[in-house]
Amino acid sequence: MPDEPLTISAAAPLIRTGELTPSELLEQCLRRIDIYEPAVQAWVYLDRQRARREAERLTDAVKKGDYRGPLHGIPIGVKDIIDVFDMPTGCGSKLWANSYARRDATVVERLRAAGALILGKTVTTPFAFTDPPKTRNPWNLDRTPGGSSSGSAAAVACGMCLGALGTQTGGSLTRPASYCGVCSLKPSYGRVSVEGVLPLAPDLDHVGVMANCVRDLAILFEVIAAPVLACTSLVDSGPDQVELYQLHDYFDAAEPDLLEIYRTATRAIEPPEVRQLKLPTGFSEIPSAHLTTMSVGAASVHAERLNRHGDDYPPRIRELIQQGLMSTAIDLSNASRLRIQLRRQFKKALKEFTVLMTPATSDLPPSLETTGRPVFNFPWSFLEYPTVSVPAGRSEVGLPVSIQLIAGDNNEPHLLASAAWAERCFAFPHRLPPVPA
Amino acid sequence: MPDEPLTISAAAPLIRTGELTPSELLEQCLRRIDIYEPAVQAWVYLDRQRARREAERLTDAVKKGDYRGPLHGIPIGVKDIIDVFDMPTGCGSKLWANSYARRDATVVERLRAAGALILGKTVTTPFAFTDPPKTRNPWNLDRTPGGSSSGSAAAVACGMCLGALGTQTGGSLTRPASYCGVCSLKPSYGRVSVEGVLPLAPDLDHVGVMANCVRDLAILFEVIAAPVLACTSLVDSGPDQVELYQLHDYFDAAEPDLLEIYRTATRAIEPPEVRQLKLPTGFSEIPSAHLTTMSVGAASVHAERLNRHGDDYPPRIRELIQQGLMSTAIDLSNASRLRIQLRRQFKKALKEFTVLMTPATSDLPPSLETTGRPVFNFPWSFLEYPTVSVPAGRSEVGLPVSIQLIAGDNNEPHLLASAAWAERCFAFPHRLPPVPA
Repeated sequence: MPDEPLTISAAAPLIRTGELTPSELLEQCLRRIDIYEPAVQAWVYLDRQRARREAERLTDAVKKGDYRGPLHGIPIGVKDIIDVFDMPTGCGSKLWANSYARRDATVVERLRAAGALILGKTVTTPFAFTDPPKTRNPWNLDRTPGGSSSGSAAAVACGMCLGALGTQTGGSLTRPASYCGVCSLKPSYGRVSVEGVLPLAPDLDHVGVMANCVRDLAILFEVIAAPVLACTSLVDSGPDQVELYQLHDYFDAAEPDLLEIYRTATRAIEPPEVRQLKLPTGFSEIPSAHLTTMSVGAASVHAERLNRHGDDYPPRIRELIQQGLMSTAIDLSNASRLRIQLRRQFKKALKEFTVLMTPATSDLPPSLETTGRPVFNFPWSFLEYPTVSVPAGRSEVGLPVSIQLIAGDNNEPHLLASAAWAERCFAFPHRLPPVPA
Repeated sequence: MPDEPLTISAAAPLIRTGELTPSELLEQCLRRIDIYEPAVQAWVYLDRQRARREAERLTDAVKKGDYRGPLHGIPIGVKDIIDVFDMPTGCGSKLWANSYARRDATVVERLRAAGALILGKTVTTPFAFTDPPKTRNPWNLDRTPGGSSSGSAAAVACGMCLGALGTQTGGSLTRPASYCGVCSLKPSYGRVSVEGVLPLAPDLDHVGVMANCVRDLAILFEVIAAPVLACTSLVDSGPDQVELYQLHDYFDAAEPDLLEIYRTATRAIEPPEVRQLKLPTGFSEIPSAHLTTMSVGAASVHAERLNRHGDDYPPRIRELIQQGLMSTAIDLSNASRLRIQLRRQFKKALKEFTVLMTPATSDLPPSLETTGRPVFNFPWSFLEYPTVSVPAGRSEVGLPVSIQLIAGDNNEPHLLASAAWAERCFAFPHRLPPVPA
């Protein structure tokens, strides 16, 4: 068995031509699960027999010439706040642990229509906030995989599935992807349907994807986005132009160790130049405004239920809801105004070919008591712009570090093409984590 | 304890003035449940401690002058295909038995806003079709309560709750209400939101209510309908006029025993005259057209799930889905055309004050192997017109028989006022069923 994770880009053409069957691919994934899952605990629901039956159907379909789409037979993990009609959607809740939705979330419908094999549900932190999950970081079992899309990141990193759905309200896609060493895309706000997804804060919730290369992100995004944008072809041809910016004064929050790895990795990038962009006035107010927006959203979704089923809420989400209940309308109104103001300022800066570059996280994966710091992520959730994270280096003890790229509204095609180009520059060797003892 | 079931119309004013507390009313209902439930089995979910806490909150609210609305503290049962956010919604399915919806159905939201105490979930037949439920008819434990809103009808008949939500696609409100001796309203198609309700056949599904008098139906309907129609005041003042029609050749399908009781009861009605209306051409094609529409709807909702979880489907719903899968587009198109044609013909007949009168069912409650015959009900589900059923007589062995009244589109206020007037003419003695041995 190869020691690097298989990509969708590599597997899909083989499935199409019959050189690899969906059943064979599934067995590869199940072997990885045998190896890693007991220690990593990325899954909350996975039924091997069902997955095998589904793979057989998809294998037969190819033989009959019925190739359904770009994800035919590709095993995909689905974060457990996203409805899959015939699997429980537990949302990290005790009360909902065995709750079945009556229909697929729109994104899952789209994955199925493209031929994907929905392998199972991946661990989420409770209600997709920051209370730690059971999942471990596959690169160091004593570290967090990040959250809240913890299981999706860990599963993709271990090659248990070739891609996964996650969500982000603060830093819930970028952070776990970076901590686990996989690629992630958080699309523009509103770009991907959130129907059938448990909200955390409706004004900030994004559905996105994780995979083992940028091109795979493009394939997945093309399937789940509406209307469809042609990303994969632009990834293949390369971006026409990239205007790369770093943000003045942005990196203060980063740990020196991490910053050192970031700087080493980005030296491999060879654009004409990396320019500096000044942070707009008001940027430093984002943490407070984001927290207000998120807490009020969480309170509107959860307050009544928290009232009735308090024991289903661990401390951090509980505190968030309570903070939302105490926020004033003025707080929320100020947060909304800040969002509009900052978006207006960024709109001038984020031109057709502009891409901003930052570390994807401010720290290396910390201990299991936390899901890590989202400080480099939530500004982009708040400001709605699409982001991609790409692994670019490793710490001395082998923990992965990613770069985050950011583009303007609905500019995912250019963002992904630029990220693929950066990925080639980094030449980061994707490989599987060490086999757990 | 009185031997007649308490009505919303009687209880609500006492709660408002503090003469009866929600907690006291709940205890009355819980005592009825102690007496009847072991034999009748109307409930699939009921948590006494939770209901008591809720009743205490509603009791405190009255004391503080916070009277929430016309259903303040009234215990209501909810058919188990309708979502209540903190109770399982099992839909009569094994797989969904412990599934929690993430939010209230719109109708439940409205009940809560009006102060209702959601007491629990009442038994539905599996997926609201005709496979028999566990519930027994409280008037004869060897007979069916009817279906699919079986538990709602039985619970209201026994005074376990004062009102209940049900649904009808064929005869699922009128038939169990009639078999159990309670009143029911099936509103005009589209009048009440079906959001958060498991569909059986979306083109035919109606949410409606059951209670122990017509005025209670009016109160419940005013709460759940959107936009709100003023029904209760018209019930109280009486209809300005009623033009009562029976349908020529309609009663052939009825059992002679039942028809005899119907004729005796309707002699008590004293309008100027009861005229005869000729059935429009094409009426006899309704059974086949309704079945086509229902089976295609059921197939569109369930086929994929039946395919994956065949063991979750009992024989009748399974057969319905399979029939839907075999229907042709021409069948469905013909059914739609018939619906339009018949509605055009009825539109002329159903004027402002027109009310049609028929027996509510064609038979007395049959054995437990069936849920009875919906032959007098599905035409009005198909044609979309609102119907009310009112108990009017009893068979020699004490089984209840109801009259069904039908009016034109969105004419619920007049229909309910006419039904209340008919109810006064019948002077049917509502009483509680015999205590099970």
